[in-house]
Amino acid sequence: MDFEAYFDSFSRRDWQETEAGTVRFAMIGLGWWTVEEAIPAVAESDLCETTALVSSSADKAERVAADVDTAEAALSYDQFHDGAAADAYDAVYVCTPNALHLQYVETAADRGKAILCEKPMEASVERAGRLADAAADVPLMVAYRMHTEPAVRRMRDLVREGFVGDPAHVHGHNSQPLLEMIPDPDQWRLDPDLAGPGASVTDIGLYPLNTTRFVLDADPVAAQARMTSRSEGFESVPDERAAFTLSFPDGVYASQSASQNAHESTFLRITGTAGELLLEPAFSPAVPRELTLSRGDVTADCRFDQVNQMTEEFDYFADCVLSGRDPEADGEHGLVDMRALEAIYEAGETGETVRI
Amino acid sequence: MDFEAYFDSFSRRDWQETEAGTVRFAMIGLGWWTVEEAIPAVAESDLCETTALVSSSADKAERVAADVDTAEAALSYDQFHDGAAADAYDAVYVCTPNALHLQYVETAADRGKAILCEKPMEASVERAGRLADAAADVPLMVAYRMHTEPAVRRMRDLVREGFVGDPAHVHGHNSQPLLEMIPDPDQWRLDPDLAGPGASVTDIGLYPLNTTRFVLDADPVAAQARMTSRSEGFESVPDERAAFTLSFPDGVYASQSASQNAHESTFLRITGTAGELLLEPAFSPAVPRELTLSRGDVTADCRFDQVNQMTEEFDYFADCVLSGRDPEADGEHGLVDMRALEAIYEAGETGETVRI
Repeated sequence: MDFEAYFDSFSRRDWQETEAGTVRFAMIGLGWWTVEEAIPAVAESDLCETTALVSSSADKAERVAADVDTAEAALSYDQFHDGAAADAYDAVYVCTPNALHLQYVETAADRGKAILCEKPMEASVERAGRLADAAADVPLMVAYRMHTEPAVRRMRDLVREGFVGDPAHVHGHNSQPLLEMIPDPDQWRLDPDLAGPGASVTDIGLYPLNTTRFVLDADPVAAQARMTSRSEGFESVPDERAAFTLSFPDGVYASQSASQNAHESTFLRITGTAGELLLEPAFSPAVPRELTLSRGDVTADCRFDQVNQMTEEFDYFADCVLSGRDPEADGEHGLVDMRALEAIYEAGETGETVRI
Repeated sequence: MDFEAYFDSFSRRDWQETEAGTVRFAMIGLGWWTVEEAIPAVAESDLCETTALVSSSADKAERVAADVDTAEAALSYDQFHDGAAADAYDAVYVCTPNALHLQYVETAADRGKAILCEKPMEASVERAGRLADAAADVPLMVAYRMHTEPAVRRMRDLVREGFVGDPAHVHGHNSQPLLEMIPDPDQWRLDPDLAGPGASVTDIGLYPLNTTRFVLDADPVAAQARMTSRSEGFESVPDERAAFTLSFPDGVYASQSASQNAHESTFLRITGTAGELLLEPAFSPAVPRELTLSRGDVTADCRFDQVNQMTEEFDYFADCVLSGRDPEADGEHGLVDMRALEAIYEAGETGETVRI
C-alpha cells in the first residue's frame, strides 16, 4: 500500500460507483434503533430517503413520520402487507425482531422492492434460507454495518496486502449491559421465539464473527463454545455469556466472546506471522474507533474522523441498487453466519467441536 | 481502594517481610534466559546473590562465572549431583529444559536447598507430581514471573475489590517468533522429549493461563482447544498455534491463545459486569507494560515505572525463604497448571471439552 494513500484515502468510499439517484425507503419496525440510528443516518445520506414508516399501528407510524420531512406514508404492518402506498418506496429496511424478518421480506420481494435486512437474517437457518429464496430476484443485503466502516475496510486491505503476514489468531469480543440500556425484562432480544437460539451470540457476538469473515475474506469451518446464563432476565436463553472459538481455513483460530450482561467492551484483533491489527472500540457506533497497526518493532495508533456507520451502510446499499450490482453481504453471505450461529449453539450445548 | 494509594503504592512490594539477609543461589542451566535475564536480575536484587554456576561442563560454567563477581563455584551437572561446593549456595534456580527439572530438584531437595524452578514445573503431570513430592520438605516455588509484576498485582487487587464487578470474560494471548529469536530448529522447546506435550501452550500459553488464575484467584475446571502445526521446524509438536478456552467457576470463560511462530504480541483482558482491566503488553519482560482501567464511562490508561520482573521474582522468593513462609506459587499451585496443560492438549487432540 502506498504510504500517503493510507492517510489520504482512509475514509474514502472505495465502493462508490453512483453519484446521483435516490433510493426511497420504507422503514419497517420503529424501535429505538430505527428511530435513533437509521432514520437520522438516512437523513444524512447522499443516495437515500425515508419515505414510508411501518409499525405495529398506523398511529405509531404517524408519530414517527411527523418528524421525518421526506415521509409520504405511515402504515401499519397489515397495511404494508396489503400493499398500501407501495409506490412511495423503492426499498425496505427491515428492523423488526429477528423471527419476523421473513414475512416482511416476502411481502417486499413480491413487489420487487430492494431489501436491506437487519442482522441476523432470521431466527434459524431454515427461516433464513426461506428468506434468501424469497428475495432471490431482488437486491438483498444483510445490514452488518461493519462492512462499510472505513477502519474495517482498511484492516481488510492490510490483511490482503500481507501487512500481518499469514493471519494466525483472532480475538474478538462484544459485550454490553442490555438490561441497563433497555430496562425491560420482556424485550424480544431475551425471547427465543423472537430472537432465535440465544441473546448474546445471535445479537452481538455476530459482530466479531461476521467482521472476522469480512477482514479475513474467509468463512469458518468449525466451532467450539461455552455458554451460561445465571442472572435474572436471562432464564430463557442459554448465552447470557458465551465464549466461542471459530476455526478458519489454514489454521486460523478466532477466539471470540459476547455478553448481553457485562460492561460495554468491543474489540477485534488480528495477529499474524508478521504483524497485528487491533480495532478498539470496534462495534459500537457511539464511540470513536481507533486502529492500532503493529509490524516488526513499530506500532502506530491511528485516529481518524468517525463516519456515521449507518449512513455509510445505507449509501452503500443504495449505490449497489442504483448501479445494478449485488451487495457483498447478500443472502448467501448471511446464511453462512446463520450456519455458524447454529454450530456455536450446538457446540455450547454439547461441548463438542461442531463442523459448519 | 484509596484513590491516592493506587498511585502512591502502585509498584510497592506489598509482599515484602524481610529487609535483611541473603539467599545464595546456584544457577542450574546456563542458557540465554539465565545468563541474560536471571543473573543480571539477581545482581540488582536486595536479598539474592549468584554464588554457583552449573552447566553441562565445568568449562562453560567457568566462562559464565568469570563475569559474576559473587561467584564462588563453577560446576558441571555431574559435580552438582555429586555435592561439590554444596556449602556455597542456599538455593537453586532450575532453568534447564522442562523434562530435566526433576533431577536437579531431587538433588537440591536431598541437600535441603530451597528451590526456584522455572515454569512449567516439568514435562508431564506425573513428573511434576514427583517433583512436588521430592521437594515436600524444602521451599519450592515455580517461577511464574507475573505474580510479582506490580501491574498484575494491582489487577488482582482491583478484581478482589469489585472494580470490574463480577468477572465474566477473559481474553489472553502470547505469541513470539521463536525461530527468529533462537534460529535453531533443534532447540529443546521444539523437542517433545525435553519440552513436554507441546511448544506454544506449554512454554508461553502458560502465561495467560497462570496469570488469569492469579488475578481471578480461581482455578480452571474445563478446557476446550484447537491447535495446529504447519510450518517447518514445528513437525514434532501439535501446537505451532493454539487457541484454548478455559472455564473457571461461576461461568467465567477465558479465551486464550499462543503461538511460537507469530508476531510478538501479549495481552490479558478481564471484562466484568461493571468494568474492564487490560494489561498490554503483558508478558514480555523487555517491553513497557501499560494498564488500562475502564468502569462505567471512564477509561484510564496507566503508565508506570517498569520493574525488573526477574529481580522482583527472586527477591520475593528469597523473602519467603528468609521469613520462613511458603511462596504462593508452590508445588500444588504448579500442579494445577500441569493438569490444565494436559487437559488443553487432550482437548486439542480430541475436540472434546475436557474436565480438569
